[in-house]
Amino acid sequence: VWFAGARGSVATTTIVGSLLLRAGLARPVGCVTALPDFPSDGLVGVADLVFGGHDVVDVPLAKRAEQLVSAGVLPAEPVAAIAGQLGEAATELRPAPVSGDVVAAIAADLTAFRERVGADRVVVVNLTPTEPPLDPLPAHSDADGLLAALASSELRLPPSSLYACAAFVAGCSFVDFTPSPGVRVPAVAELAIRAEVPYAGNDGKTGETLLKSVLAPMFARRNLNVRSWSGLNLLGAGDGANLADPGARASKLASKDRVLAGTLGDVPPGEVGIGYVPDLGDWKTAWNLVTFDGFLGVPMRLEFTWHGCDSALAAPLVLDLARLVAAAHRDGRVGPLPELGFFFKDPLGDGPHGLDAQWRELTAFAAGLGQP
Amino acid sequence: VWFAGARGSVATTTIVGSLLLRAGLARPVGCVTALPDFPSDGLVGVADLVFGGHDVVDVPLAKRAEQLVSAGVLPAEPVAAIAGQLGEAATELRPAPVSGDVVAAIAADLTAFRERVGADRVVVVNLTPTEPPLDPLPAHSDADGLLAALASSELRLPPSSLYACAAFVAGCSFVDFTPSPGVRVPAVAELAIRAEVPYAGNDGKTGETLLKSVLAPMFARRNLNVRSWSGLNLLGAGDGANLADPGARASKLASKDRVLAGTLGDVPPGEVGIGYVPDLGDWKTAWNLVTFDGFLGVPMRLEFTWHGCDSALAAPLVLDLARLVAAAHRDGRVGPLPELGFFFKDPLGDGPHGLDAQWRELTAFAAGLGQP
Amino acid sequence: VWFAGARGSVATTTIVGSLLLRAGLARPVGCVTALPDFPSDGLVGVADLVFGGHDVVDVPLAKRAEQLVSAGVLPAEPVAAIAGQLGEAATELRPAPVSGDVVAAIAADLTAFRERVGADRVVVVNLTPTEPPLDPLPAHSDADGLLAALASSELRLPPSSLYACAAFVAGCSFVDFTPSPGVRVPAVAELAIRAEVPYAGNDGKTGETLLKSVLAPMFARRNLNVRSWSGLNLLGAGDGANLADPGARASKLASKDRVLAGTLGDVPPGEVGIGYVPDLGDWKTAWNLVTFDGFLGVPMRLEFTWHGCDSALAAPLVLDLARLVAAAHRDGRVGPLPELGFFFKDPLGDGPHGLDAQWRELTAFAAGLGQP
Amino acid sequence: VWFAGARGSVATTTIVGSLLLRAGLARPVGCVTALPDFPSDGLVGVADLVFGGHDVVDVPLAKRAEQLVSAGVLPAEPVAAIAGQLGEAATELRPAPVSGDVVAAIAADLTAFRERVGADRVVVVNLTPTEPPLDPLPAHSDADGLLAALASSELRLPPSSLYACAAFVAGCSFVDFTPSPGVRVPAVAELAIRAEVPYAGNDGKTGETLLKSVLAPMFARRNLNVRSWSGLNLLGAGDGANLADPGARASKLASKDRVLAGTLGDVPPGEVGIGYVPDLGDWKTAWNLVTFDGFLGVPMRLEFTWHGCDSALAAPLVLDLARLVAAAHRDGRVGPLPELGFFFKDPLGDGPHGLDAQWRELTAFAAGLGQP
Repeated sequence: VWFAGARGSVATTTIVGSLLLRAGLARPVGCVTALPDFPSDGLVGVADLVFGGHDVVDVPLAKRAEQLVSAGVLPAEPVAAIAGQLGEAATELRPAPVSGDVVAAIAADLTAFRERVGADRVVVVNLTPTEPPLDPLPAHSDADGLLAALASSELRLPPSSLYACAAFVAGCSFVDFTPSPGVRVPAVAELAIRAEVPYAGNDGKTGETLLKSVLAPMFARRNLNVRSWSGLNLLGAGDGANLADPGARASKLASKDRVLAGTLGDVPPGEVGIGYVPDLGDWKTAWNLVTFDGFLGVPMRLEFTWHGCDSALAAPLVLDLARLVAAAHRDGRVGPLPELGFFFKDPLGDGPHGLDAQWRELTAFAAGLGQP
Repeated sequence: VWFAGARGSVATTTIVGSLLLRAGLARPVGCVTALPDFPSDGLVGVADLVFGGHDVVDVPLAKRAEQLVSAGVLPAEPVAAIAGQLGEAATELRPAPVSGDVVAAIAADLTAFRERVGADRVVVVNLTPTEPPLDPLPAHSDADGLLAALASSELRLPPSSLYACAAFVAGCSFVDFTPSPGVRVPAVAELAIRAEVPYAGNDGKTGETLLKSVLAPMFARRNLNVRSWSGLNLLGAGDGANLADPGARASKLASKDRVLAGTLGDVPPGEVGIGYVPDLGDWKTAWNLVTFDGFLGVPMRLEFTWHGCDSALAAPLVLDLARLVAAAHRDGRVGPLPELGFFFKDPLGDGPHGLDAQWRELTAFAAGLGQP
Repeated sequence: VWFAGARGSVATTTIVGSLLLRAGLARPVGCVTALPDFPSDGLVGVADLVFGGHDVVDVPLAKRAEQLVSAGVLPAEPVAAIAGQLGEAATELRPAPVSGDVVAAIAADLTAFRERVGADRVVVVNLTPTEPPLDPLPAHSDADGLLAALASSELRLPPSSLYACAAFVAGCSFVDFTPSPGVRVPAVAELAIRAEVPYAGNDGKTGETLLKSVLAPMFARRNLNVRSWSGLNLLGAGDGANLADPGARASKLASKDRVLAGTLGDVPPGEVGIGYVPDLGDWKTAWNLVTFDGFLGVPMRLEFTWHGCDSALAAPLVLDLARLVAAAHRDGRVGPLPELGFFFKDPLGDGPHGLDAQWRELTAFAAGLGQP
Repeated sequence: VWFAGARGSVATTTIVGSLLLRAGLARPVGCVTALPDFPSDGLVGVADLVFGGHDVVDVPLAKRAEQLVSAGVLPAEPVAAIAGQLGEAATELRPAPVSGDVVAAIAADLTAFRERVGADRVVVVNLTPTEPPLDPLPAHSDADGLLAALASSELRLPPSSLYACAAFVAGCSFVDFTPSPGVRVPAVAELAIRAEVPYAGNDGKTGETLLKSVLAPMFARRNLNVRSWSGLNLLGAGDGANLADPGARASKLASKDRVLAGTLGDVPPGEVGIGYVPDLGDWKTAWNLVTFDGFLGVPMRLEFTWHGCDSALAAPLVLDLARLVAAAHRDGRVGPLPELGFFFKDPLGDGPHGLDAQWRELTAFAAGLGQP
C-alpha cells in the first residue's frame, strides 16, 4: 500500500493500526472486511500488507504518532510497544516529488517499492488534501498527449491526478479516498484501462454522509416527504483548514450531495455548511436538520449530531479498500469498481446510494473474490 | 376495517385520511403501499376500505376530528370539505362491549358489520391503550376452555386479547398495532389457526424505533462497537398518560428493546426513559445518545432528536396493514405474518430487525399477493 | 406607532396582537413591560397605541393576518373575532414613498398621521429587510447637506436611514429593530439631537443571540475557557430569502458577534452560518456548539437548538419598545437610549451585553420614567 | 481542607489541581475566585491550602490520579511532574472511621490534622456518595441528645451528618457538596451555632442545573411562558452507579428541582431522568427539552445537550468554597452562608436561584471578607 499523503492523520493511523493488529494489540473495530460476511481466503491478510508513501512534509512518523496519541486518536501504551516496528515502517516513507516529471518520479518510486518489499502488487491510496474541481481541457482527453504534456511541464494537474497517472503507469491499482479530480480526468481513466488495473473512489464515507445513506432511504421507504435537509460540519485539524478554501469546499459539498439525490430522487432544499474550528482537532461534529411531512401534511423534524474522529473512522476503511482492491487486481478486474460504493460518498458508476443496497453489492463482490 | 379504539387519534386520523384520499384532497404521504414497489392489483384499494369500530368513550367522530384540526394533526379546510362523509362514517362506530360475554358481543358486531357493508372480509385493528404484560396461566393454553371461561366470566383477559379472540371467532384477520398481550396468549393464537385467518403485529414502528432499525444496522455493518444506547421519549396526549403506568411502560420498553438485540447481537447498556409531557399533545420527542468505539478504541457519539406526530405516522401504516392483511386473508394465509415486520417494533416470528432486510421481505411478500 | 415595513410578519403580528390584547383575547406573553417589574403608570398603555405604516407591497392586512393564521403564528378564532378592528387599522397603512424627496414624503405622512389620530407623539419602528453595511462618505457627516442631497437625489441612502431622517425631521422618535445602517450615519444621528428626540436600536434580540447573552456570561462567571462557538441559523420566509444576500448577511453576522465580544472579552473561533430553508416559514432553527475547557484543560461541550417563531418573539418586544421610547420622548430624553440594550443584539452605546446587566439597566430606566 | 471521600474523583482532582496550580503547571480555569472580581487579599491563597481526608476505600492516591489520567480528566505529563508532592499529600489521607463513636473519631482526626499541619482552621468538605432523604425523628432536634445517642450507637445518621457533627465538634467549618442530609438535621445545625462556625451547601452546581439557573431567568425576564421542562442525565462512574439507587436519586432530583421553582415561580411539568451509563465514565451528558409559548400562544422549543466532566467542573469550585468558607470562619461568620448560593443546586436560605443574582450576592460577600 502506497500513500499519497503518508504522514497525514489517516495514513499514520492506518499504519499504526495495522501494526497494532498484527501485534495482537488491537481489535479490528471499524474494519468491515473483518466481519464474518467476508471470506478471509479471498482477501489479502492485514498482516501481509506493507506500507510506504510520499508526503510533502517530513515530520517523522513517530512524531506524528505521538501527536495522535496526545490528541486521543491513538492509544498511548500500545503505540509505545510497537515503536520498533514503527521505526521500520518509517523507512519506506519518501518526500513527494514536486518538480520535473513528477509522474515518472512517482512511478519510479512505486516500482522500486514493489521490488524492494517483494510485493505482488501495489495499491496507491490518495489521502492528499481535497482539491478544487478541475475545468475540463481538451488535453484531458488524450492519454498519450497528457503524459507527454505532463512530462514537459506544458500541463499541470493536481496531485490526485498525478498519483493516479503514476499508479497506472507503474501497473498499480488506485483508491481515491478524497473528492479530488483524480481519475475523473478522462485520459487518466484511460491509463487505468491500458494498464489493466482497477480503481475505486471517491471520497471516503465516514460520518455525516454515512448517516444520510441510511436515513434518506428510511424516509423514502416510509414514503415520507422530505422538505429540507440542512447541516453544518465543523472540523478542525488540517482537513478543516483546507476546506476553508472555497474551491476545496465546492468539491466536498458536491460529493456530499450525491447521496440525497441518489436516494430521495431530488436534493431537498437546505444549506450544508462546512466550518473550520481548530479546537476540534481530529474530531468532526456534524449537525443536520431534516424537516419532513407526514400524512396529511403534518410537519415533523429530525435532528442529529455526529461527533466522530475522522482518522479513526477512515483508517480501517483504508485497510478494507487496500485488501479488496488488491484482490480485485489479482483477479483481473480492470477499471472502476462500482461495487465498492459502500465506502464512498460519491461512488463510481451508477450504483445505489443507500447503504443497505451498497452492502449487498459489496458482500456479493467479496464473495466472488478468489473464485475461479 | 374494524378498530378497537375507534375514537382515538390514530383511528380518527386513519378514517379522515382515507376519506381525504378518496376525495382527492390528500396525497398518500406516509403510505408505504402507495410506493411504486407495490403492485396495486394485488391489494385492496384504499377507496374500497370501509371503517367501523368500538370505543369506550363516545365523543362524536366529528368532534375528535375538530380537536385534531386544532392540534395541527388534521388540515382544517379539507376536513371541513368532507364533513358529510365523516358523518356517514361515524354511523359505523359503536360503544365497546364491556360486560357479559364480551367476546361474543364483539364477534356479533363484527359479523353484522361485514354483512351490513357487504365486505368480503374484515380486518380488526387493535388501537386500544397499551396493557401490562400478562402472567401466563394454564387456562391460556386451551382454546375451547379459554372461550368458555371468558363466556362465564371465570377468566379475564385484557381488551387486546378479547378483540383478537372475537376477530378469530368471527373469521376476521387481526392486526395488533400495540405491544399489548393480544395474540401472545397461546390459546388465542390457536383460534386464528382454527379460523384459518392471518394476523400481524406487534406495536407499530413509528418513531424512535424506526430510527434504531436503520442506525443499529449501520453500526453493525461498519463493525463499529456500540458501547451504550440511551434515550428519553417524551409524549403527551392519551398515549403519554397511559404510559405513565409502570405496567404499560414495561410492555412498551420490552417492545422497543427488540430492535437492538436483533441487529447488534446484544442490547448495549443504557437507559430508555418514557416521560409524560402533556404540552406535547399528539407529538412525541425522542432523544437518543449512542456512544461507540471506532478503530483503536477511539470514543465517538451520535445524538438524535426525533420530533414526530404519532397519529400522522401511524395512520398511513394502518391503511397499509389493512390492505396487506386483507389481501393475505384473501390469498389463504393463516396464522402469523412475519413478513410484515417492517411495520412493527416487535415483529412476530424470527425475522430480521434491520429495516432494509424487512423491506426486502415486505416487497417480496407484496409481489406474491394475488398470484396464483 | 408608525412601521416601516407595515405589512411584514412582525408588524402584522404586532398590530393583531395589540388588538387582541385590547379585546381581552390574549395575554401579554412575551411582553417584558407587562411584568410586575415595570410600573404601568410611567408607560403608555398598550390600549392607547395607534398603528400606521408604510410598505412597498400592498397585500391587504387581513390577507397577511390570514396567512399568519395558516402558518400557525396567529390564532384562528381570536383573529376572526377582531376582523372589524383589523379592517379599521388597515386604513392607516400607506404605500411607501419611493421616488422624489422620499424623506419629505415620509415626514409628511408622519405628521398627517399624528394629527389625524390625535397622538401626542409618534414612534417610528424600522422593520424593513436587513440592508448591507454602508461605506462612509463625507456627505454622511453633515446634517443639512445630507437632507439637501437627499432632496435633490444627489445622494442615496437605504430605507432604514431615510426613515430615521424622516422621523427626526417630523419630530418623532425612532426604533431600529434591524441591523441596517439607520442612525449609524453620523448626520442622521445629528438630526435626532436637533429634533430633541430619542432613538433606540439595533437589531431585535429574539433567539440565538438572546441565548448567547445568558450563556456567555455563565461561562465567564464560572471562569470556564470558551474555545470555540459555532452555529447555524436556518430560517425561512422573507427574512431568510433576504439574508441569502451576502451584504445583508454581513450586517446580521456583525450584529450577532457583538454579544460574545462583549461578554467573553474575545470572540472565540467558530463559524456562524445563516441558511435559507423556505420550509421553515416563520420559524427559525438555530443550532450552536460551544466547546470549552474546564479545570486542567479538560475539553467539554454544550449544544443547543432553538426553534422559535420570530414574529411571535419580536412583536411583543416591538410593543415594549414603543411604550418605552414614547415615554422617554415624553420625558425629554434626547439621542440614543443605551438603557434599552436588553432588547437588542447590537445595543447603542457602551452598555453591557450580558442579559442580566441589561435587565438591571432596563428596570432602573423604567423606574425613572414619569418621575419628576 | 479535610475531605469526606478523599479518594474519589472530585477530591483527587482537587488535590492534584491545587498541586499543579502551586507548581505553575496549570491555570485556574474554572476557579471562580481567581477572577478579578475577587480581591485576593481577603481570601486564603490556594497555595496555602493543605489537604487531608477520610475514605472508606484505600486505593492509593497516586493510583487514583493515574486512573484519572487514563480517563482524560487529568493531564499526563504535569501529573507525572508532581509525583513527589502527590506522595506527600497522600500521607494525610486516613481510613474513614466506621465503628464505635464515629463522630468522636472523626473529630479527633480533624484536631490532629489541624495541629500537625499547623493550620489556623479546617474546612471539612463532604464529597461522599449521595444519601437518601432522612425521615425526621425527635432525636434529630436535640444537639446534646444526638451526640450522646450517636456515641452509644442508639442512633444512626448517614455519613454526611456524621461529618458535619464532627466538624462542628472539632470547631471546623463545613461544606456539603452533595444533596445528602448533612446539616439539614436540626440538631446538627445547632452544633454549628454552638461551635460558632459557618457552613455552606448544598449540592455543587456543575452542569445541567447551572444551565437552568441562567435559562430559566431568561424565560422569566422575557415573560415567555414555559410549558414543560424535561430532561435526561446520563452519567457513568461511581456517581452514576450510586444514583441508580432510588433513594439517592430522590435526593438528587429534589435538589435539581429547586432552581425552576425559584426562578419560574412554579416547576413546569416534565420528567427529569437520571440514567447510569458506565461507558460515560467521569463524563455526564444531560439533555433538556423546554417547550414554551410566545406571544399569542405560539409554541416554541429549546433543546440543549451538556457534555461535561463532573470532576473537572467540581474541583475548582471546591477550591473556591474552601477559600471562601475559611475566610468567613476567620471573619467570625456563624451558621449558614446563603451568599454562596452561586455554587449550589439547592442553596441554604431563601436566596435567589438565578445565577446572576447569586453572582451579585457572592461578589458582595467576597468584597466584605477581611474588612474590619
